[in-house]
Amino acid sequence: MSGVYGRKIKMTIFGESHGASIGLVIDGLPPGLGIDIDFIKREMERRAPGRNLLSTQRQEKDAFLIQSGVFEGRTTGTPLCALIPNSDSHSKDYSILKDNMRPGHADYSGKIKYKGFNDYRGGGHFSGRLTAPLVFMGAVAKQALARYGIVIGAHINNVGEIFDRKFDPLGEETELLMSLRQKEFAVLDDVRGAEMQALILEARERQDSIGGSIECMALNLPAGLGEPFFDSLESRLAHVLFSIPAVKGLEFGMGFGFCRSTGSQANDPLYYDGDSVRTETNNNGGILGGITNGMPVVFKVGFKPTPSISLPQKTINVSEHTNTVLEIKGRHDPCIVQRAVPVVEGVTAWTVLDMLLTADIDGEV
Amino acid sequence: MSGVYGRKIKMTIFGESHGASIGLVIDGLPPGLGIDIDFIKREMERRAPGRNLLSTQRQEKDAFLIQSGVFEGRTTGTPLCALIPNSDSHSKDYSILKDNMRPGHADYSGKIKYKGFNDYRGGGHFSGRLTAPLVFMGAVAKQALARYGIVIGAHINNVGEIFDRKFDPLGEETELLMSLRQKEFAVLDDVRGAEMQALILEARERQDSIGGSIECMALNLPAGLGEPFFDSLESRLAHVLFSIPAVKGLEFGMGFGFCRSTGSQANDPLYYDGDSVRTETNNNGGILGGITNGMPVVFKVGFKPTPSISLPQKTINVSEHTNTVLEIKGRHDPCIVQRAVPVVEGVTAWTVLDMLLTADIDGEV
Amino acid sequence: MSGVYGRKIKMTIFGESHGASIGLVIDGLPPGLGIDIDFIKREMERRAPGRNLLSTQRQEKDAFLIQSGVFEGRTTGTPLCALIPNSDSHSKDYSILKDNMRPGHADYSGKIKYKGFNDYRGGGHFSGRLTAPLVFMGAVAKQALARYGIVIGAHINNVGEIFDRKFDPLGEETELLMSLRQKEFAVLDDVRGAEMQALILEARERQDSIGGSIECMALNLPAGLGEPFFDSLESRLAHVLFSIPAVKGLEFGMGFGFCRSTGSQANDPLYYDGDSVRTETNNNGGILGGITNGMPVVFKVGFKPTPSISLPQKTINVSEHTNTVLEIKGRHDPCIVQRAVPVVEGVTAWTVLDMLLTADIDGEV
Amino acid sequence: MSGVYGRKIKMTIFGESHGASIGLVIDGLPPGLGIDIDFIKREMERRAPGRNLLSTQRQEKDAFLIQSGVFEGRTTGTPLCALIPNSDSHSKDYSILKDNMRPGHADYSGKIKYKGFNDYRGGGHFSGRLTAPLVFMGAVAKQALARYGIVIGAHINNVGEIFDRKFDPLGEETELLMSLRQKEFAVLDDVRGAEMQALILEARERQDSIGGSIECMALNLPAGLGEPFFDSLESRLAHVLFSIPAVKGLEFGMGFGFCRSTGSQANDPLYYDGDSVRTETNNNGGILGGITNGMPVVFKVGFKPTPSISLPQKTINVSEHTNTVLEIKGRHDPCIVQRAVPVVEGVTAWTVLDMLLTADIDGEV
Repeated sequence: MSGVYGRKIKMTIFGESHGASIGLVIDGLPPGLGIDIDFIKREMERRAPGRNLLSTQRQEKDAFLIQSGVFEGRTTGTPLCALIPNSDSHSKDYSILKDNMRPGHADYSGKIKYKGFNDYRGGGHFSGRLTAPLVFMGAVAKQALARYGIVIGAHINNVGEIFDRKFDPLGEETELLMSLRQKEFAVLDDVRGAEMQALILEARERQDSIGGSIECMALNLPAGLGEPFFDSLESRLAHVLFSIPAVKGLEFGMGFGFCRSTGSQANDPLYYDGDSVRTETNNNGGILGGITNGMPVVFKVGFKPTPSISLPQKTINVSEHTNTVLEIKGRHDPCIVQRAVPVVEGVTAWTVLDMLLTADIDGEV
Repeated sequence: MSGVYGRKIKMTIFGESHGASIGLVIDGLPPGLGIDIDFIKREMERRAPGRNLLSTQRQEKDAFLIQSGVFEGRTTGTPLCALIPNSDSHSKDYSILKDNMRPGHADYSGKIKYKGFNDYRGGGHFSGRLTAPLVFMGAVAKQALARYGIVIGAHINNVGEIFDRKFDPLGEETELLMSLRQKEFAVLDDVRGAEMQALILEARERQDSIGGSIECMALNLPAGLGEPFFDSLESRLAHVLFSIPAVKGLEFGMGFGFCRSTGSQANDPLYYDGDSVRTETNNNGGILGGITNGMPVVFKVGFKPTPSISLPQKTINVSEHTNTVLEIKGRHDPCIVQRAVPVVEGVTAWTVLDMLLTADIDGEV
Repeated sequence: MSGVYGRKIKMTIFGESHGASIGLVIDGLPPGLGIDIDFIKREMERRAPGRNLLSTQRQEKDAFLIQSGVFEGRTTGTPLCALIPNSDSHSKDYSILKDNMRPGHADYSGKIKYKGFNDYRGGGHFSGRLTAPLVFMGAVAKQALARYGIVIGAHINNVGEIFDRKFDPLGEETELLMSLRQKEFAVLDDVRGAEMQALILEARERQDSIGGSIECMALNLPAGLGEPFFDSLESRLAHVLFSIPAVKGLEFGMGFGFCRSTGSQANDPLYYDGDSVRTETNNNGGILGGITNGMPVVFKVGFKPTPSISLPQKTINVSEHTNTVLEIKGRHDPCIVQRAVPVVEGVTAWTVLDMLLTADIDGEV
Repeated sequence: MSGVYGRKIKMTIFGESHGASIGLVIDGLPPGLGIDIDFIKREMERRAPGRNLLSTQRQEKDAFLIQSGVFEGRTTGTPLCALIPNSDSHSKDYSILKDNMRPGHADYSGKIKYKGFNDYRGGGHFSGRLTAPLVFMGAVAKQALARYGIVIGAHINNVGEIFDRKFDPLGEETELLMSLRQKEFAVLDDVRGAEMQALILEARERQDSIGGSIECMALNLPAGLGEPFFDSLESRLAHVLFSIPAVKGLEFGMGFGFCRSTGSQANDPLYYDGDSVRTETNNNGGILGGITNGMPVVFKVGFKPTPSISLPQKTINVSEHTNTVLEIKGRHDPCIVQRAVPVVEGVTAWTVLDMLLTADIDGEV
């Protein structure tokens, strides 16, 4: 029971990288939302490999085919299914993986869970390709959120030892966030960006991979969004962010920095700015008690290095029950962080939209 | 819709700190599980304040009264309700909080969300007291997990700049984890523990508070637990861990350390240890592709400093629509991390039990 | 996993008839709803036995104690827990039922499901007493619905061979529906009502019981409520109505009468009544494609005779593994239909409120 | 939020009759289940029109294309998506329906709910064609249930005034249930079947339609399946059965017959048949307290006449805001009951499988 999630906006994800197609179904969209196909395409392209030397040389196509839920350019309000057919599969690259378990991947865990019946080719349902439906979902959600003036944007926070500068937690211009979407390598400081890209190419040279993190900001969320306890905004965001393959860490606002801080340093004083309520600092990243306070929501997501590396690795062969050494031939991303930016934005947009659409009736008697 | 969570084992939480009582309902427990009341009491006491100078001097009683779901000492399999009556409330301490919004708390967020109708006394439904039901849930779950040989244990990872040593990610003895439950201040290195406690007392002197983090380990989980995508073990654990008040960061295994690492450093090589499959390192914290691989599950949870401090703080008065200064009199915990240890263990135990109880039918035809 | 249900308004039910108390938790109520305690009491009294000779002579008290979620007379928006303590239990009446399975009851089914660990006293969690929380839920929901001008009312459709007249499917005055709540025996035609009561007393004389049905109407629902497929209004109402003990049949509008009808007879022609859209007939009971069309929602619920009768019955003793004969001493309702009226209304009100509170964002771009 | 339902086995349905395709995603299937494509095809054909004069002369193709979740002929355990492409659409038949609301259909309800943005062609998402995915789901579920020896079968109970004989509630041979699947017109008594078919053809002559009902039996369910209250087997079955278009009534066992019965007549006496527990009668249809007792589960589902008739009907034009008269040209089923038999079996099989796969851990300590 892993392929379905959401409250009002439920997403169902399906597909193996070497099956007929991957895709999603979105249930609960409001009717009448204009669907901008070109915008969705651009968002999908941000994720797709083969765009430059930093990514894999595979030519994945993320062309999508909408099967239902859109009529005359607008959502009908009924379930929307989008298919992303698989094409460039190169099955022969993966036959060795039936019994040799790649370290750092889900091969062994998945084989146990699915009792050996999972489609192991190219990672099957665990393939990073399955982030494409998440980007599609996010693209639709962003269009809905735009009607509220809500903008989600993200940049690469670090690759290896190279760190970009941070977002200003008190807020950035929406134009800045939008501009990041245009960049092939989404950073605020292009000098740092160039250093990161050098690191990545160097990792490729060494047949290795390298990790990194992403910082994400959601602007103009109304105050009052979220719930105490089990549907706090942090819980809901964490749930979908940790669904993204390779995510291993998440911190909101000051995050783990809080652990070495004091209350007098960490608390965000409130003040009236005209009629608006703001805080002087935003260490809490816009969320208190699981509920937004109107300040920008800010968090960082940590990604482990791509497990697929060409260097020889010690592992096991589950058919022969022996220890062995594995060299994974093929084309591997040395770093996935730059491709994960629209994925992080996408699941965030979905979650924010979902929580926004839960009604409260009028409080007066 | 925040008070209910879970798949097979659903927990419903209710209560305001100054209402009649707080409590929970647990739905989906298997029938016939022996309920050890004394064990539950001891777990509740680990959370309760007033045990020593480090915590608040309030005398909260976490005495609980089971209303249903237990018959002749065993679960019936029907919903189990436990009440925790409120007693030592001191309402007069909180009257000022109707309109003055405490920084770092949910006061303002909650007022917007609940349109001013929430019970603001003592934090109401946002009060840290609401972690008592989480510990009760965890105590019941731990009893169920013991039948599988699964043990959950945690220790304080840091308070301020003082760090305990870490768990060995390749595994610890269950006796070590159990022994932590006996300690008032759950650390592996008591020298460090004394230094932490000095820091906490010093913060109290300054009328301030201090943050910290907790490291948690789950031993003997079978491989194959969890799902890709939306019910990955990381997602499920993250969902409940971020439900705990004051949690602002979470990392699994190497966590954010991965972001500055390479694949060759980070991947965990597999090998056969007799018939068992183990990994030489456990940077992935026992979870790959969202599914356990049989190695210990290890993660760290970051807590912000208690927002309640006696120092004067700038804030707003929402009734008069002015900026103001607030001094919160009363008895405040200078650090909540030591009390949060059984809470982190508890929600982890609940989640692990919940995921364990989802069946798969036999794979053969 | 049976004690929790709902989408926006989740209800958790708990309790055994001979445990400490039974009760419920309601999660998702909007904040600021005035809670009229007296109204809830009156609704609970409609369900309670001992009011007259038609019902059991047990003196159940349905006094309730609100634990959370209400502050200064209004909902806070946080989970609302209400306890209904058990009192008049007479445990000695039920000791024989540990091993002798009463025909028509859940004794045997429940023993298998709960592996013998269920509380068998007085039916335990299966006791009809557990309908009291459903009435409480309904009373709160009715108060919320009143703000929309929505009224739910029901009457006894038949007891044995005696039938009341039906509601006019094109609509009744809200005053008529409200007036039924004042009656001890909720019928439209008091002559028929007297005949029904005679039948019931006669059944009591014979130490037997008798079945019946209830007709329910929901007035002033807006059009557009419900979903095609899995959350059709019929599906949602059916789900909760069949949760009521002893319910064995449900039909909407013309119901099974449709099965012997033609399209030309059954279809409801539409017309404009000023600006309103109405239908000339209402065979469809106000629901088409799972969605309301603005006409009154009308349905009938069929109840089997109370299984508890004093006549000797053949059954089994599961401890001795023998066939046996059982005579259930004690005080039994000869008919439960008159007590079930507020229960049917209550779960209907809850469902309607739940579906009403799901938001759609504005359809325009 | 209507397109997703289920607990362990979640089904997501999507599609408009005139969109690119309709289909479903099944999440939660156990891995390793052999998928018999031919069996699925045969089940789909039982539903498809154009097989004989009794049904519409449209040539719908229910050819399906599996996109994911099946590898080397077995389920992988990951989400299974099947597409059913639309082809024979004849859009020009439906253009009049944008503004003229067909009586008895969801046209008006749907237009209000979806604010005019729904795809109205051919009924869009409300089209009876959307029962094809339900049959596909049922075909897969039946294959899984076969491993437990559980068989689901149904026959036409009545069309108009002509009634088939009933199933023996104490049980039928599985061969009898299986044999019904081979028949084009699934009845037990072929003489009655011929009379029904004459009635249907006569209705077609009159440009009218006629209603009917279906009786369904599930054999060999273990005792103990289901829950008290909100997930009773009746509630779960009712939820999915009322999701089927045109269903307006449902009764379990004696159903509405109970309402005119007494306890001494209705209760089912239990007895030991060797080691098995059986009941002498089965008025309760195998379900007590919402839980199976091991006897056959039996129920009847009532269908209204197909709303689409060629006779002139009074209705409204929502664009011009006038009353009007509508004649629906085109090819209409005079009766849908015979096509609904595999749909009723299908959703029943899905529900039974779903409830079977919820685990309970061992009851002993």
